[in-house]
Amino acid sequence: MVPIIISLICGVVGLALAGLMARYVLSRDQGSERIREISAAIKEGALAFLGREYRILAVFVVVVAIILGFIPMLGWWVTLSFVFGAVCSGLAGFVGMNIAIRANSRTAASAQKSLNEGLRVSFRAGTVMGMCVVGIGIIGLSILYFAFHNNPDFLKIVPGFGFGASSVAIFARVGGGIYTKAADTGADIVGKVEKGIPEDDPRNAAVIADFVGDNVGDVAGMGADLFESYVDSIIATMTLGMIAVFSVTLGKSIVPDEATAWFLPMLVAAGGIIASIIGVFLVRVGEKAEMGALLNALRRGTFSASILTAIFSFLAVYFLCGTQGFGINIFWAILAGLIAGVLIGESTNYFTSYAYKPTLNVSESSQTGAGTLITSGFANGLMSTLPPVILVVVAILVAYHFADIYGIAIAGVGMLSTLGIQDATDAYGPVADNAGGIVEMSDLPPEIRERTDALDSLGNTTAATGKGFAIGAAGLTALALLLSYTQAVGIDIANFNLLSPHVISGILLGAMMPAIFCAMTLNAVGKTSFSIINEVRRQFREIKGLIEGTAKPEYGKSVAICTTAAIRQMIAPGLITIVSPVVVGLVLGPLALAGFLVGAIAAGFIIAVTFANAGGSWDNAKKWIETGAFGGKGSDAHKASVVGDTVGDPMKDTSGPSLNIMIKLMSIVALVLAPVLAGFTGLL
Amino acid sequence: MVPIIISLICGVVGLALAGLMARYVLSRDQGSERIREISAAIKEGALAFLGREYRILAVFVVVVAIILGFIPMLGWWVTLSFVFGAVCSGLAGFVGMNIAIRANSRTAASAQKSLNEGLRVSFRAGTVMGMCVVGIGIIGLSILYFAFHNNPDFLKIVPGFGFGASSVAIFARVGGGIYTKAADTGADIVGKVEKGIPEDDPRNAAVIADFVGDNVGDVAGMGADLFESYVDSIIATMTLGMIAVFSVTLGKSIVPDEATAWFLPMLVAAGGIIASIIGVFLVRVGEKAEMGALLNALRRGTFSASILTAIFSFLAVYFLCGTQGFGINIFWAILAGLIAGVLIGESTNYFTSYAYKPTLNVSESSQTGAGTLITSGFANGLMSTLPPVILVVVAILVAYHFADIYGIAIAGVGMLSTLGIQDATDAYGPVADNAGGIVEMSDLPPEIRERTDALDSLGNTTAATGKGFAIGAAGLTALALLLSYTQAVGIDIANFNLLSPHVISGILLGAMMPAIFCAMTLNAVGKTSFSIINEVRRQFREIKGLIEGTAKPEYGKSVAICTTAAIRQMIAPGLITIVSPVVVGLVLGPLALAGFLVGAIAAGFIIAVTFANAGGSWDNAKKWIETGAFGGKGSDAHKASVVGDTVGDPMKDTSGPSLNIMIKLMSIVALVLAPVLAGFTGLL
Repeated sequence: MVPIIISLICGVVGLALAGLMARYVLSRDQGSERIREISAAIKEGALAFLGREYRILAVFVVVVAIILGFIPMLGWWVTLSFVFGAVCSGLAGFVGMNIAIRANSRTAASAQKSLNEGLRVSFRAGTVMGMCVVGIGIIGLSILYFAFHNNPDFLKIVPGFGFGASSVAIFARVGGGIYTKAADTGADIVGKVEKGIPEDDPRNAAVIADFVGDNVGDVAGMGADLFESYVDSIIATMTLGMIAVFSVTLGKSIVPDEATAWFLPMLVAAGGIIASIIGVFLVRVGEKAEMGALLNALRRGTFSASILTAIFSFLAVYFLCGTQGFGINIFWAILAGLIAGVLIGESTNYFTSYAYKPTLNVSESSQTGAGTLITSGFANGLMSTLPPVILVVVAILVAYHFADIYGIAIAGVGMLSTLGIQDATDAYGPVADNAGGIVEMSDLPPEIRERTDALDSLGNTTAATGKGFAIGAAGLTALALLLSYTQAVGIDIANFNLLSPHVISGILLGAMMPAIFCAMTLNAVGKTSFSIINEVRRQFREIKGLIEGTAKPEYGKSVAICTTAAIRQMIAPGLITIVSPVVVGLVLGPLALAGFLVGAIAAGFIIAVTFANAGGSWDNAKKWIETGAFGGKGSDAHKASVVGDTVGDPMKDTSGPSLNIMIKLMSIVALVLAPVLAGFTGLL
Repeated sequence: MVPIIISLICGVVGLALAGLMARYVLSRDQGSERIREISAAIKEGALAFLGREYRILAVFVVVVAIILGFIPMLGWWVTLSFVFGAVCSGLAGFVGMNIAIRANSRTAASAQKSLNEGLRVSFRAGTVMGMCVVGIGIIGLSILYFAFHNNPDFLKIVPGFGFGASSVAIFARVGGGIYTKAADTGADIVGKVEKGIPEDDPRNAAVIADFVGDNVGDVAGMGADLFESYVDSIIATMTLGMIAVFSVTLGKSIVPDEATAWFLPMLVAAGGIIASIIGVFLVRVGEKAEMGALLNALRRGTFSASILTAIFSFLAVYFLCGTQGFGINIFWAILAGLIAGVLIGESTNYFTSYAYKPTLNVSESSQTGAGTLITSGFANGLMSTLPPVILVVVAILVAYHFADIYGIAIAGVGMLSTLGIQDATDAYGPVADNAGGIVEMSDLPPEIRERTDALDSLGNTTAATGKGFAIGAAGLTALALLLSYTQAVGIDIANFNLLSPHVISGILLGAMMPAIFCAMTLNAVGKTSFSIINEVRRQFREIKGLIEGTAKPEYGKSVAICTTAAIRQMIAPGLITIVSPVVVGLVLGPLALAGFLVGAIAAGFIIAVTFANAGGSWDNAKKWIETGAFGGKGSDAHKASVVGDTVGDPMKDTSGPSLNIMIKLMSIVALVLAPVLAGFTGLL
């Protein structure tokens, strides 16, 4: 019981920090009338979207909850846990976004004073998000423990929480992702390409929708995403650990007792929260900081948090299991995950930053046009799968060597334990991006825009690292969930072999799912941005004086189009993710479902990394050209790079990150269904 | 023995038809002085490339042969079989290309008479290729039987033949693919995009290289590719069948005896040859045929061949095993493969032809620029994985239901048995393409060019169907090889389960391989076309009077650049394909290698289908716009579609088809290595 109280306290401390940071942000000056006006429009649009999204999600949650309740092998406690998970996830996204939409104007106003002031406000706003995610996550899980740890169905109830969190996350990520990229692409194509006006120009009717998108997609969507990564990795480890104590199929006991199985991941995560808090406070620079110093400050924060997490994990292991045998072995597994996570983040940076050769090559290929640029960026994305796959494989082998399959699961917790600060550096980006847009629209002097651009570009670097890290963690977590599933459903090892055509079929179908999912989300962005483009073109055509700057566009119409389209189109990709494992499990049986998950995880991991890094390198190839390379802004090379960026945007910000959730959600659906499927052989 | 003699006779009949068709083609008029001159330049370039390629391959084959010979568990008979397979594969490609480079001028000359004359010459040239592939394939395997069927190591010797064929195929496909797409893209970018001159304009220095590329890539490369598909599917079935007779791991006998295991696939293939020959003779149209009639004629040929193959297969099964139990069951498995193959071809056509909605949507998205066009084409490619995966899964489940894992293998033979005519309709395309180019360069009247364009466009339709079919067959064949491997290496079912971290690691690494392979081949095309672009630009800059048409470009220089670059860059992707399964098998052990193959097959299948169909739909979206849609030629929509085509070209003609070979080659390397790996547990 004591370790859970420690976790709970760490969670509360995390939330307290979030409160402190929020108070700081809200106490800042909101800037001029014009700034406040724009910020209000963004706030209105973002809250309207979230309101509609959450209403749809509420219906979905109620329907699924009722279904779960009426399945005899599951029951109403699973329902309750599912609803609780969904509410926690929605809450994390809501609180985070609420501070972000208030921080953008304040960052813009602070940037008028200095670069460092701007960083402080935006990073603290990001910290609110990061701390809310980890705080609510660990508190939610602690409550679950207090409420149900004596319930004989505990093992069925816990995954329900993850299922709820993941369900909300997939819709939030996909819906937000469609919104943000459709608005962004639509605004860019008509504004930058067709009309030749700058980005974020107030005459562009889609510009407010673009800002709203940053909040609902990159803040609220990502918050729900990271929340589910975080709680799923812990849940996977707990369930696997509890099953492993009595494992019949494994034929041996990996974890000494149920309490350890439960307490260990919670304590590692709690240590990560404290490490993240310390890391946040290490993000400090002098008053007249340069870009390099800012980046170093952020990296100092994340690296310190990683090292501290290693130390705290060792203490947690020592406290719970001693340093002999099991204890020290578990520590090595955690360390393997932690190190792999950091290195995957670095490799992402290598493949996407224009400081290194791969992205420089991509930008060089812009000289022969958009076609060659796109081929070379895509090739770069494909090649970038090498380090993450090797690192995950090494982490798996090391973790398994030391602590069997439980090691693989806890390595995932190790990787995710610094999420508090990782999310803070991630969520700070869109706040800075919004602030830049507000500055552009407020006719502030160009040096202010330069400052917010610098903050934005810093955010891009940290976002790239964060993305790699999120994908790596998703891979390990999904694997851990899959392992839990195979244990929970009681797959007989002697049956689980490749010669079974059901397993082969499952793998092929599973590998297909990420492709179908990406096709749907890419098309959704395409369709929505098509509507936006037509709307912006219409306004330029019909509103007299718009292009001359004497009339104002109707921002609200673009916002309404994005909202409606994104919400309508988030439903199908979300539903197939939830329904497909159910169908495969019932029709082809639990063995095929395990194969299905394997196929989906392997293919999903590859596609997610490819999309994220191809998108990142096109984006930065464009930025490199904008610094003056190959003719700079306005050159043919630059035009080619804008096309590349348009292609990469939905890949890296809609489809790619949603895949992370998809592979975990499918795995957790399987885990939740395990009691239903146990002993069942499928209809075919 | 009798069935093999029947197969041998069918093979000889196939070659006889090839000879007849070749005589017909060679007897045609070669056209004007100018036509002959251009054709001679193409011939020279193509033969020079093939000469250099084969010299490199000879070195490779000798080195691998020696290594195989010195491995104690394999020995010199395996070496001999390997060399024999390599030689047969090279021969099929060489003979086919030799007739293609002679048929282009004759097609151009015949097209001056009528559309139908043009079709006849080019289709008969394609038939030479198709019949050589199947004839040489089945004769080679028959010789192998006569030479070794009493040898106790027979089961080790047979896969050597496939290994030889696949090794040649991967280099020929990759090298040819790099050549053809680099020349094509390079010529298009400088010619069409920068200089605004038509395709195949004689002032373009890369135009001859482009024609050469069609021959070395789309004829010789594809010939080697289909040869290996064909023999590998038969070999997989034979080895699996022979192992299955005595299978310990399966615990039951699937195939009555070794003779049946060997004879059955040979007879089914032999029936397919006769069916293809009949199909070829059904490709007839009246003298004044329209496009629609031509297409119907080709489809009548392929469909009839499929139906006849089904009938002949039934006879083969009846002849060998009767119609009770095993016999009729095997027939259902063959039929499942055959039908799945036809349907996969049709689904490819649906996703890539502008007669249907998906490609029309892609071309519609060109209105908002190259970026949205590329996203929508890629999404279409991803979505197009749905039917092939479902069809392969259904074929697997049906085949397994009727004839266990042997059924899966023989379903692959069923799918590939109509290869003779499929390859004929495929190989006819590049001949027609070349003829069109020659017409353009010879200042013949525009109506002749219209005729060759019609032939070319017909070729594109049949190529799309053929590509889908090739990918489906590759998937099934690779699975059959994998199953043979697991049996040959004696994987204990109880060990082969997903909870093994080695298997998981293998799957992840395997899924990564197609991505790395595609990255390398895409980059190779990019680099080579970059050199070509610079060379063509240089010639326009330095050769006075070139753009005015008073001076001639130095075609030879572009040809030399393509040759050198393609040969240099085909080596690395080929080598990693061969070396990676060896490394995984030795380091992580035979279980991990099985996982590795599963991952590679699943991910490779998805990526191959995506690349082929995305590329096909971009190509046809461009063609649709060229018919006048969205502003027609020269419009912004058209420019966007040219960019899409540039992106799709290396995907659909270099990386995509090479993946088919890659997944089979890795599987056959594993199968050849099985005696070495049996009982081994890996270094880690």
